[in-house]
Amino acid sequence: MEYQALFSPRGVAVVGSASPGKLANVLIHRLIEGGCENIYAVNPKGAGVGPVPGVSSFAPLKNLVDLAVIAAPAATVKNVLTDCGKAGVKAAVIITSGFSEIGNAAAEEEVLAVARQYGIRFIGPNCAGLVSTQSKLVATLETSPPQGNIALISQSGAVGGVFMALAKEQGLGISKFVSFGNGPDLSVIELLQYLKEDKETNVIALYLETVTQGREFMRVVRDVTLKKPVIVVKSGRTDTGQRAALSHTGSMAGSDKVFDAALKQAGAIRVESLEEMLDLCNGFSYLPPLSGKKVMILTNSGGPGVMSADKADQAGLVVADPSPDLKAALQAFLPVHAGVRNPIDLTVEGTGEEYQKSLEQALKEYDAALVLYIGTPYLRAMPVAEGVAIAAAGSRKPVVSVLQVGSDLSESLHFLRNHRLPVFPSGERAVRVLAYMAEYEAYKTRQLTVPAVAGDERCLAGKPSLLEPEAMALLQKNGIPIPEYYFAKTREEALDGCHTLGYPVVMKVVSPDILHKSDCGGVVLNIDSDDKAAQAFQTIQTATAGCDFCGVIIYPMLKGGREVILGLTRDLQFGPVLAFGLGGIYTEVLQDIALRVAPVSREEAREMIASIRTYPILQGVRGQAKADLDALADAIAAFSQLPFHYEDIREADLNPVFVFPEGLAVADARIVGAKA
Amino acid sequence: MEYQALFSPRGVAVVGSASPGKLANVLIHRLIEGGCENIYAVNPKGAGVGPVPGVSSFAPLKNLVDLAVIAAPAATVKNVLTDCGKAGVKAAVIITSGFSEIGNAAAEEEVLAVARQYGIRFIGPNCAGLVSTQSKLVATLETSPPQGNIALISQSGAVGGVFMALAKEQGLGISKFVSFGNGPDLSVIELLQYLKEDKETNVIALYLETVTQGREFMRVVRDVTLKKPVIVVKSGRTDTGQRAALSHTGSMAGSDKVFDAALKQAGAIRVESLEEMLDLCNGFSYLPPLSGKKVMILTNSGGPGVMSADKADQAGLVVADPSPDLKAALQAFLPVHAGVRNPIDLTVEGTGEEYQKSLEQALKEYDAALVLYIGTPYLRAMPVAEGVAIAAAGSRKPVVSVLQVGSDLSESLHFLRNHRLPVFPSGERAVRVLAYMAEYEAYKTRQLTVPAVAGDERCLAGKPSLLEPEAMALLQKNGIPIPEYYFAKTREEALDGCHTLGYPVVMKVVSPDILHKSDCGGVVLNIDSDDKAAQAFQTIQTATAGCDFCGVIIYPMLKGGREVILGLTRDLQFGPVLAFGLGGIYTEVLQDIALRVAPVSREEAREMIASIRTYPILQGVRGQAKADLDALADAIAAFSQLPFHYEDIREADLNPVFVFPEGLAVADARIVGAKA
Repeated sequence: MEYQALFSPRGVAVVGSASPGKLANVLIHRLIEGGCENIYAVNPKGAGVGPVPGVSSFAPLKNLVDLAVIAAPAATVKNVLTDCGKAGVKAAVIITSGFSEIGNAAAEEEVLAVARQYGIRFIGPNCAGLVSTQSKLVATLETSPPQGNIALISQSGAVGGVFMALAKEQGLGISKFVSFGNGPDLSVIELLQYLKEDKETNVIALYLETVTQGREFMRVVRDVTLKKPVIVVKSGRTDTGQRAALSHTGSMAGSDKVFDAALKQAGAIRVESLEEMLDLCNGFSYLPPLSGKKVMILTNSGGPGVMSADKADQAGLVVADPSPDLKAALQAFLPVHAGVRNPIDLTVEGTGEEYQKSLEQALKEYDAALVLYIGTPYLRAMPVAEGVAIAAAGSRKPVVSVLQVGSDLSESLHFLRNHRLPVFPSGERAVRVLAYMAEYEAYKTRQLTVPAVAGDERCLAGKPSLLEPEAMALLQKNGIPIPEYYFAKTREEALDGCHTLGYPVVMKVVSPDILHKSDCGGVVLNIDSDDKAAQAFQTIQTATAGCDFCGVIIYPMLKGGREVILGLTRDLQFGPVLAFGLGGIYTEVLQDIALRVAPVSREEAREMIASIRTYPILQGVRGQAKADLDALADAIAAFSQLPFHYEDIREADLNPVFVFPEGLAVADARIVGAKA
Repeated sequence: MEYQALFSPRGVAVVGSASPGKLANVLIHRLIEGGCENIYAVNPKGAGVGPVPGVSSFAPLKNLVDLAVIAAPAATVKNVLTDCGKAGVKAAVIITSGFSEIGNAAAEEEVLAVARQYGIRFIGPNCAGLVSTQSKLVATLETSPPQGNIALISQSGAVGGVFMALAKEQGLGISKFVSFGNGPDLSVIELLQYLKEDKETNVIALYLETVTQGREFMRVVRDVTLKKPVIVVKSGRTDTGQRAALSHTGSMAGSDKVFDAALKQAGAIRVESLEEMLDLCNGFSYLPPLSGKKVMILTNSGGPGVMSADKADQAGLVVADPSPDLKAALQAFLPVHAGVRNPIDLTVEGTGEEYQKSLEQALKEYDAALVLYIGTPYLRAMPVAEGVAIAAAGSRKPVVSVLQVGSDLSESLHFLRNHRLPVFPSGERAVRVLAYMAEYEAYKTRQLTVPAVAGDERCLAGKPSLLEPEAMALLQKNGIPIPEYYFAKTREEALDGCHTLGYPVVMKVVSPDILHKSDCGGVVLNIDSDDKAAQAFQTIQTATAGCDFCGVIIYPMLKGGREVILGLTRDLQFGPVLAFGLGGIYTEVLQDIALRVAPVSREEAREMIASIRTYPILQGVRGQAKADLDALADAIAAFSQLPFHYEDIREADLNPVFVFPEGLAVADARIVGAKA
């Protein structure tokens, strides 16, 4: 309901000084130019603007106005909103700045309280407004784009402005634009939910600088992307502080990396620049879904064809040669000098008809086609554009075009756009779009489930961390394989333990004071006799003198497995986050880590395992046996549930875990509680 | 001399049918439009074109014409060139196709022979012609760009056409354009040598599909890049065949990777697309050299500023905050709401004067600046452009600008261009240019020398490969550290050897038939007694029965070092190529290899070592000692000389080499001769 008031209001009140050059005045002009009707200027003087009547209060507007666009001074916004509420206004766009962005959070809270009181929903404050092209509502200072099916939600008004200016330049149509500013009321999350159902919108573009309520954001994005693509630019990727956070497993979840993982898990497409975002919007806005990765490149010039093929290959598309049948079909009508491979090179003599027929044939076999036309000032592109349009119309597969150099490029460009055929500035950019489209379809068919989580147990009983035997017991209870172990408080118990487990064994100190056991002589490996066991106990006790010594934990020596690391931490925005990598140097030097927002299913755990660069090592190289990846996936999935079962776990590291050809065992565990 | 005939001819003869629509006719029109004088049409009918007189033979043109532009049928080109020669023509552009590109190499040879006979130099055949803007020579069908200081050499006429069309669009000026086509006479190498000295040219752009005479090409590029930047696009990067070649060390030199290494060694900048190439030309064409990596970003909007900072950071630039002094200087005139960090955010209220003053202050401390102006349809960019121009004029440091959204962008864009200040479509693209410019300056100051190589010895005496003791002796002779070893033909000799070296030892089969010694039981490790030595000898002899058994080689067991691999192979175009990587999984799974065209100096070897991702492992992680990188660099440099000293070495692998905290030792060597 409130969305109709926001995007298709019966009447719009613009609040603020209506003098020429003032914000409210400009906004009114923009609304008029956009074709909006039933506009009212609200200001103390009751001054109108051109055909727009002015009033000095909301009283006369009762039930005439659904939306207030507020450009009044910050100090007055609260009272304006009260008046709005009394007059039955249901939605507001608060352009005015001077709230939480300059530290004035209290004023923003007050505005929110008034809005809640009267049931008003609003965007802003400190925003650049909104656009709803279908209802001819241009309530922004930014460029007004043509109508279309791309929605843009932007945390930065300026970025929104640049996006829309570029969209207009490129002939891309917008359904809705929302600059949400500080966003204490209508958030990205709610706007995404609305846009999911919005019939005017087929593609959603999102510019973000910060994310709040990460898990809810993720849930909604996951929901939306099953229906419509969501393309995201988030800035602040390389904040020095974030990189500094990557120092050890638990905190490898530097928050931009977490955001990146969350977006991928939720099926959104993160890109690096507005240019890429617009290219993708162009593709998704016009093209049918891409059902596979096989792309035919059709060109009239070798060089640009090869450059596009290179890029397509790098981007994961398949530039396979035509089948013998297709080759024969092409050779039946193409001249001998044409190259019938992939790219098909029609040479500079390629005609519109040859483009058309080749494309018709190719689209029977390929999932998509890239058409390159490189002219000279003396060649005409229109016959080619016409041929492409005919061929594309007879197929339900994506066709992207590139037109470079020629006397009639602009005419051909518009002709193709009018036939809903996107044109890109270069073959490299066109194939990048196809590659993302193929990935999006693959994501949609993958259908990974998010495991249910439940439980509000606690496991630390207020202690800063679990002792190793406690941690091992907890893991075992939660289905994560651990080795046999023996907890011994005295030398005699230790010897008993060694006998129970059988030599050789490893012995480690158990103390709440000691986090890095190896560093202080608290670990003895390869103990193979009673003498050595007794000596080890003595060594450990001596080495850790001064600490609260609880005893030792004894394991059989583990051998022949691959070492991996599992980590869990709690991200401020996304909650529990899971890290996985190979042990030792691979994690430390190569930073070859897979991150996911927890929990993950067994299937997602398998994807995680396969996503690291060093995956072949787990699969077995140089004659080594393959690690038990099913057992590993099960352990990862089970481990990812821990912070949900036990709300007092802040961080957990299993480092290392030995993965054997059959089964696995956790060789060390650190489980740390929430800070008091 | 011939270059003056090519680029500034006294007269130009265009050869071929002059009928309307024919190639020669169009070429004549283009020459006239370009402002060229003294044009003659040469065709059997002696037909002129407009003001251009026609002649039916070259006889009347004797000593009037330096350059012939030939668009006559392929079969006639040889005779045309003969006539040219007799009339004193010194240079030719052969547009005509139908030569080696369609398999007709013989005709091309004939044309070359005639040209040599008469001392004519030519570009083409099968080319798109040339442009020399200074002498108003437009002998091409492609777009004619404005005059400027960028030279373009392109193997593809169409790519050249696209480049020039885009250059014109972006207001970039060209000095020379050469499409060299099949290029049997004037090659890229000679053209580069000419452009190095060409006063009209400050930047060289190069589009290549294939490279011949790789080492000579590299030598010339190295020479040119010390004076002018060379920016290269080479297509065919991901040819499936090339990837297939990456299966083992020796052939890791898939030729595109070699090309990539060669370009880097020679100081050229390889980019992936024409877009990037044009961006770089824009930067290098207008900007003073970038002396460091510290960049200030000056913006009136947060989002685009952060996006540019992200990209700058990723590209290796330094986006450091201002010093306290600079902060104070900025705060002295900026309003309180402006953000005085990096980026400096003047906010939407930023004035031209604030841009100017901030830039003036920032350029005192930073090596370069990026100016972002994000307007709305109601803001004017001109005051900002004027402020930027004033500040930039007072500094010798590079200033790049981005103008987005606004009522007068085009005016401001032209204003900045007229002040030789490049403008880019986005901050991301602008900082990418700055990053490349910084790298280029760093390359120029690095001044690595190429070691002299000499020698025409042979070491294989016609054998397919050296036996291991022979290979070890050769390495030792060439200054590459090897372990002590003992070559034993009998069990008795083997026992003597063990005693000489001292246990424990390793014993390996020596046989010309066995390349992979471990795979067939030909290696026994950890031999620590006479019994085991005797048994090992027996085992090896039995395991390798049927092979030509020459004996065994015995080494002390090597321990405690890091394993690295060195490989040498001969690339078809670039000759000896050197590969370096960490042993085992790192090379095999991670393909973490450094490649260089050999030979390399000690300093370049150090760069090679530091360039692999796993370099930290050699530096010592987790408390392990640092490997002796000086010794390794010396060994790499010495190894890289081998194929020059011994012309019959085709491939060599040292795998592994143990690098110790002090010194190193080659633990296995394979040296293979040229195929008979």
